[in-house]
This record gives sequence, structure tokens and C-alpha cells, in this order.
Amino acid sequence: MQDRLEKIVSLSKRRGFIFPSSEIYGGLAAVYDYGPLGVELKRNVQQRWWEAMVYEHENIVGLDAAILMHPMVWKASGHVDAFNDPLIDDRRSKRRYRADQLIEDYIEKLRARGETERAEALHRRLIEALNADDMPRALYQIIMEERIPSPDSGAFDWTEVRQFNLMFVTHVGPVASEETKVYLRPETAQGIFVNFHNVKDSSRLQIPFGIAQIGKAFRNEIVARQFIFRMREFEQMEMQYFVRPGTQMEAFEAWKEKRLQWHIENGIRPDHLRFHVHEKLAHYADAAVDIQYLFPMGWQEVEGIHSRTDYDLRRHQEFSGKKMEYFDAQTQERYIPYVVETSAGLDRTILMLLCEAYDEEEVQGETRVVLRLHPRLAPIKVAVLPLVRKDGMPERAQALVRELRPFLNTFYDEKGAIGRRYRRMDEVGTPFCVTIDSQTLEDGTVTVRDRDTMQQERVHETQLLSYIKDRLRQWKPIWAS
Amino acid sequence: MQDRLEKIVSLSKRRGFIFPSSEIYGGLAAVYDYGPLGVELKRNVQQRWWEAMVYEHENIVGLDAAILMHPMVWKASGHVDAFNDPLIDDRRSKRRYRADQLIEDYIEKLRARGETERAEALHRRLIEALNADDMPRALYQIIMEERIPSPDSGAFDWTEVRQFNLMFVTHVGPVASEETKVYLRPETAQGIFVNFHNVKDSSRLQIPFGIAQIGKAFRNEIVARQFIFRMREFEQMEMQYFVRPGTQMEAFEAWKEKRLQWHIENGIRPDHLRFHVHEKLAHYADAAVDIQYLFPMGWQEVEGIHSRTDYDLRRHQEFSGKKMEYFDAQTQERYIPYVVETSAGLDRTILMLLCEAYDEEEVQGETRVVLRLHPRLAPIKVAVLPLVRKDGMPERAQALVRELRPFLNTFYDEKGAIGRRYRRMDEVGTPFCVTIDSQTLEDGTVTVRDRDTMQQERVHETQLLSYIKDRLRQWKPIWAS
Repeated sequence: MQDRLEKIVSLSKRRGFIFPSSEIYGGLAAVYDYGPLGVELKRNVQQRWWEAMVYEHENIVGLDAAILMHPMVWKASGHVDAFNDPLIDDRRSKRRYRADQLIEDYIEKLRARGETERAEALHRRLIEALNADDMPRALYQIIMEERIPSPDSGAFDWTEVRQFNLMFVTHVGPVASEETKVYLRPETAQGIFVNFHNVKDSSRLQIPFGIAQIGKAFRNEIVARQFIFRMREFEQMEMQYFVRPGTQMEAFEAWKEKRLQWHIENGIRPDHLRFHVHEKLAHYADAAVDIQYLFPMGWQEVEGIHSRTDYDLRRHQEFSGKKMEYFDAQTQERYIPYVVETSAGLDRTILMLLCEAYDEEEVQGETRVVLRLHPRLAPIKVAVLPLVRKDGMPERAQALVRELRPFLNTFYDEKGAIGRRYRRMDEVGTPFCVTIDSQTLEDGTVTVRDRDTMQQERVHETQLLSYIKDRLRQWKPIWAS
Repeated sequence: MQDRLEKIVSLSKRRGFIFPSSEIYGGLAAVYDYGPLGVELKRNVQQRWWEAMVYEHENIVGLDAAILMHPMVWKASGHVDAFNDPLIDDRRSKRRYRADQLIEDYIEKLRARGETERAEALHRRLIEALNADDMPRALYQIIMEERIPSPDSGAFDWTEVRQFNLMFVTHVGPVASEETKVYLRPETAQGIFVNFHNVKDSSRLQIPFGIAQIGKAFRNEIVARQFIFRMREFEQMEMQYFVRPGTQMEAFEAWKEKRLQWHIENGIRPDHLRFHVHEKLAHYADAAVDIQYLFPMGWQEVEGIHSRTDYDLRRHQEFSGKKMEYFDAQTQERYIPYVVETSAGLDRTILMLLCEAYDEEEVQGETRVVLRLHPRLAPIKVAVLPLVRKDGMPERAQALVRELRPFLNTFYDEKGAIGRRYRRMDEVGTPFCVTIDSQTLEDGTVTVRDRDTMQQERVHETQLLSYIKDRLRQWKPIWAS
């Protein structure tokens, strides 16, 4: 299964979906760049989310808050005090580990060695330690008592476990001091909370209403891995839904289903998705569920739906001294709204779509790689290919490209054998290839080849645009047809 | 004129275009958030740029590189050594000034006092100082010899002039040291240069070709002002066009005209735009021109077109040890391409559009504020308004909203007198208001009111969508009709 992820990483680089950042300098760990096809896929996902959240809901509006915010925001949100990872250093190798992951990896090893009982007992201790008041101390004790060695040096020469804050720090102005310290936001949500009144008042919204935002966030992860799954710089698609206290569970249930449905509508098999209910809730939450996808590396979170109560608005009221209340003119009530949040990782969504779409099949003794992306999300919608580079076919094909381009992202390719050109379009998920051949010159018909079935149909040029538009609209994933 | 800018700032806040960031905490200087209407305007500008650059050019592809890059990138680009502002401190007030701006403001004062000759002489000295090898020293000498006082304390008690780097610094990993130092990118361009091979090879592009990117950049400005004109966090729309050495001036001239035309097509009066040729070129450039707009505070840059020669690619070749060459299979030549860059400020473009669109006129003894935005860019395309909240008009209007929404961003409003509702739509630039009245209930016709002329026409509901689409397409700014 991990092999499958490697194939996707390789395809992503080779065909211009995703590149390691600053690669000519050896890269910057856990940071990636989107290439020409990746950026189109990303834009399509963003657009689809924005339509589904903002345009299809009369009571949801958009926002685009800045990455840099007043540092007090992160005091109020709790991130300055509690957004930490417990770290431990191997004195011998000077390498640093997340203490909880060190123990988890050790448990995995015990399991692999067949020491199931010991593994289970240790797993229970780990859960306890993670819930302990002095969590770093509790983790340290486990490592000491179990004498867990360092995975790299093999030594048992550890420092204490210390809490390390995951926020990136920078300074505004020329002097680096406590007063000038600001953070790169670790989540987009707080930009929505601090703008609660600005948005409500300027948009004249009434509860229930939502504020949706797509934007970058940053986390200084110590152990970042698995391609674009866990990055230091990543993008979130978040929506905060403000409701009357007492009605939050209804909203929570509704958004859970809506968000799951959205992923299915993007072509994800329903049995590759599941809800994962949080066993341990954050102290401010009264319900939380993840939408998980069956990645090559196992079930992992793609999106979280959280009932955050009035925690955030109340904290901002305390820290800013500004009332964060809503006045209901009909019932004459005044209250701090409750919030239900839907928070999707954009990069994870893209990784999920690539994993779901990636397919290999045997065709005439060769392996065909095809990305079965939903046509709405595919970077290129149609490729126009002259069968040969003569007899005016290239000119005819280019004229067709000019006709289609204003309506569909259209790609022109005249290089190489037609079979290879088809394969190149298959592996980047282009739903249709249109070929100009000698018959085109006679009767104006072209062949339209379907990415998924590889079947070809002859269509008259004048019908082509509406034919393709219809087929794009009618498309269904294989599991649904 | 400054008054006009203040009105735009006020409208932006009140109607949800642009809010000061973290406002409940007193704001974060020179950082702003886009509100519900602002984010729609921004998305429309981004989309329009992407279409014009990427979709309308077969040889231009997109990219979305990360904000965090390998620190060596900024060594190679010259930003670590030379991206500085000369700063001077008033010891009395502890306030900090940009030395060149301090002198410039002083020159302005001399001019205002009628001491024209002295002002001109000082202006010439300032230009010389800015070109001097030891620029900070030269600026310091002017301040000393002219005995320029501090604008706040009135004192003459200055520190030396020191260079201050404008890049925001942060650290990857838990230790803040020289080795873990990274920067928030001060421009998006370098993300394109370091990906030159990745993009070219994955997209099989041949010179000339371009790479286009929209993204955030950060500059730790000491004196940031004029609303969203100069921000610490801002967004760029950049395109790097790679050409054969010797052909760069042709590309430079072509892009100059294309980019000017783009702004005019967005509804900017041609006589509010001009080219400003750089008197002093950066050492690596062989031509540079700004597109300036006549802002309320005067002519200011919106976009730069620069012929950057092979400077950037050559520097990355030196610093990375990787060949940054292009091989031309036809001519069998191998060379480092030259680059022509178009670099537009997205936020400045938005400020320009707001300034250009903002209009006040007397209507029946009242002042009507109207944003004459190009309909393609307007956040809301059509508002549907029931004349009164009874007789089934609201239901009829809402049904119409549901019909229009999949095609046009449609807004529903039933609150307040119809005249006030029209005004509210005028001041956010909504091109059309559709009113449901008693005649609608009889014959299915609605009134369509034009934002610019305030004229109304009756149209049958079934014709409405195509009528509005036609009118949107046909729209011309007042200066063009």
C-alpha cells in the first residue's frame, strides 16, 4: 500500500502536480509546491468548496483574514499556552523525537515481535499519560521505566520531556523582542471569530449563519511526513456556523452529513470514508467527529466537524474586553452564540483525491496508469490531438482548441504516437481526448475518446462542445455506475 | 482627494469589503482582512488575471509555490544582503524613521514654505545619496548638515543610519538558531525561478514560455500606510516569461501593452493610467517600467514590468550548483534564458478598482453613492427584491433567487423601503436589481433596474437570466460609452 503512495508522489513530480519546495537547494522539509497541473486541481477543489459552502447557502458568507494577527488572539484561543508537542532529545545523536510517537513506535515494535499483551498494557499507559495533568512527566516515566532506546543511535541517553509550542514566531518591526512577537496563524478559524461582529454587521446576517474561509496555516511540526499529508505550511477550508445555544447538536449532525456527502460527490467511494468519533473531547467541545479516508497508509483524518460551544467567542470577549454577543430582535434574547465548525485540510483533500483516482490496468500487455478524477476537478478537461503532423491536421486542431478554450480548459498536443499521447492524458486525468484525423478533413467529424472506458465515438465538430459538456455533466464514478 | 480615500476606507469597513486585522485587539498595523464582499471582489480579480494570463496563453502555465523556502534562495536572489531600508532613530522619542523618507518629507516642507531652490538642491543631493556606495552614510550626512529635526519630538538627537532587512524571519524546528532560520518570502517570483526545470520538464514547454503565480508575500515595512496600498502581508500576481537572450525587449514591449490593456478592460479610465519608466535600473535589469494609477494620494505603482535578464537563474545556478540552462533542440543552442516579469499587487489592484469605481451623485436632493465596478468584478451580480413583504412576493422572489444562483451570484433582500435597498446595492456595486411587484403576480414580469443609469425595464421572468447575461456582457464603463 505504501508503494501506491510512492507511485503517486512520483507521478505528482513527473507530471507537475506537486514538487518538493526549493528542490534545487535540497528541499525544505515538509513544504511542497503545486505545479502547473496541481494548481489547477487545487483551484478546482477550492472553487467546488466555495460554491458548496458560500454560493449554495444564503446564510453563509466568505472571509479572507490575514495570516498575521494580533498576538493576543493566540493567548485568547489557548494556542500560546497549550498548542504544544512533548519533545525529548537523544543526547548521543542530538536527534529530537516526539515523546508520544516514540512510545507509539515502540508499541508497534512490541506488536510486531508478538508481545501483544505487553503492547496492549503499554498502550493503555500511554493513553493515561496523554490525559495526565503533567503529561510530559508521565511520558518521561514510561520511557524511563520501559527503557525505550533511541531509534537512531540505539542509545538510552534521553533528556527530560519538554513542551514545545508549534506556532512559528516572527517579529513585526526592526527589533526582535517580546513586544514585537507575532505568530503565523496555526489555524484559520480565529480570523473568523475575531471578525464576528464585522461580518455580522456588514452583512446583516441573522443566526444561524456561517462564515467560510480558505487560507494558509502554519505548524512547526517536528516530525512531518507522508508527502503532503502533514506539512509545515498547509491550507485549510474552514466554516464556522453560529447557532443559538441549545441548537448546536442539530447543526452538528446536519453538517456531518453534508460534509461527508461533499466528498462523495467529488468521486470518493463511500466505503473509503468513515466517521471517527473523538474518544477524548477538547475541554471546550461538546461533540467532535473526523471524516477519515482510507489512505494507502491507513485511515486518516481529512476533515473535522466540531461543536466548539461558545468557547472561542467567550475567550475573545474576556481578552479583548469587547462583547461578543448576538442580539435576537425577535425573541429579545442576548447571548454568545455556539459554534459548529467544519475544518477540512485542502492539501489532504487533494492527496485523498489523487489516491482515490490513481488506477493501473493491463491494456494489451502494457500497464495503463489512469487518474479517474471527477471531471469537475480534472486539471485539463479536453485534449485536442492531430493524428499526424501534416495535411493541415495541426491547424484544424489548433482552431478547435481556440474554440473550446473559453469554455473548457483545453490542451493541445501534437508530439509522439497517438497511443502515447492518450496515455499521457490518462495519467493526468483528462476526461476526453479529441482526435483530428483524415476523416475530419472530409466530413468534419472527430473522434472523442473516453478516459475511463477508452471507447471512441465520432462526433461532428459543430456538436463537440455541447457533447462534451453533456458527458462531463453525466459522469459517474465507476462505483456508482 | 485624501477625503475620497477616507470615504472608501469607511465604505469598505461598513459594507464588508475590508476590515482592519484583529480589530477587537486594536488591530495589527498594516495588515487587513477581506470581508464577505471584499473576498468576492478579490476572487473575481484573481480569476480574471488567471484567465488572461494562463487560459488565454497556450504557452503560460500556473504555479503555486509555498511561502516558506530554503534560506539559500534569498542569498541567491540578493534579498539577504540587499533588501534593506535605511533606518534612523530619534533618541528623544524612541521613534524610528526611514532616513530617505525623513529627508523627502523635509524637502516637501521646504517646497510648501516656498523655498523652492533649496528644496531642488536637496532633492538632487538625495538622489545622489541613494546611489552612493555607502548610502546610509550619505543619508546621515544630509540629515546632519541640514539639521533636519524629528517630526514628532522636534529634537535633533539622531542615531546613525543603519540598514534594516525587510524580510520577516522565523525558525523551522524547535531551536531558534542561524541554521534553522527561514524567511517569509518577500516576493513570489523566486518560487518560479527555483521551479524552472520542474515546470519546464513536467509541462514540456518550449521557449518562449511563462509561469504565472498568485500568492502572499511579506515585507516588514517600518512605515506602512495608505490603507491596503502598502501592507506587511500582501498578495502578488506575477508572471515570469522566459525568452531567448536578445529577444527580451520585444517581449518587454508586448507585455507592457498587454498588461496596461488588462487594467483598461477591467474598467479603469485610460487617462488614470500611465507608464512610469524607471530612471535608475536595478543592476540586473535592462529595462523596467511601472504601470501607475492616479490614486487619491497621487500617481502610484500598481504593477511593474521588468526585464530581469538572466540574473535570477544565473544566481540560482551559482548558489545551487545546478545548471539552470535551456536546450533548444531546433537550433542546438544551450543558454540561460532571459526573463521578462509582470508583477502586479493584488491588493493595490483592488484599491485602484475601488477608487476608480467610487462615485457620488445628487439624486432628488440626496447623495447617491455608487460603485461603478465592472460587472465581471462586482461581488454581487444581481439582487432580487420583493417590493413588499406580503402577497406572496417574498416567496416569488426567493424562487427566482434559487433559479439565478447557480449562474450568477445573487443576493436576496426584503428589509427596508425599496429606495434604501436600491441604494445599498448601488454602494456595493451590484449591476442589477430585480424587483417583484404586484404586476409580477399578474403577468410574470419583473422590473430590472440598472445601477449606473437607475433606469428600469420590465422583463418577463422566463427571459430574465439571458437578459441579465446579455447586459452584463454588453456593459461599458461611462468613459467608453
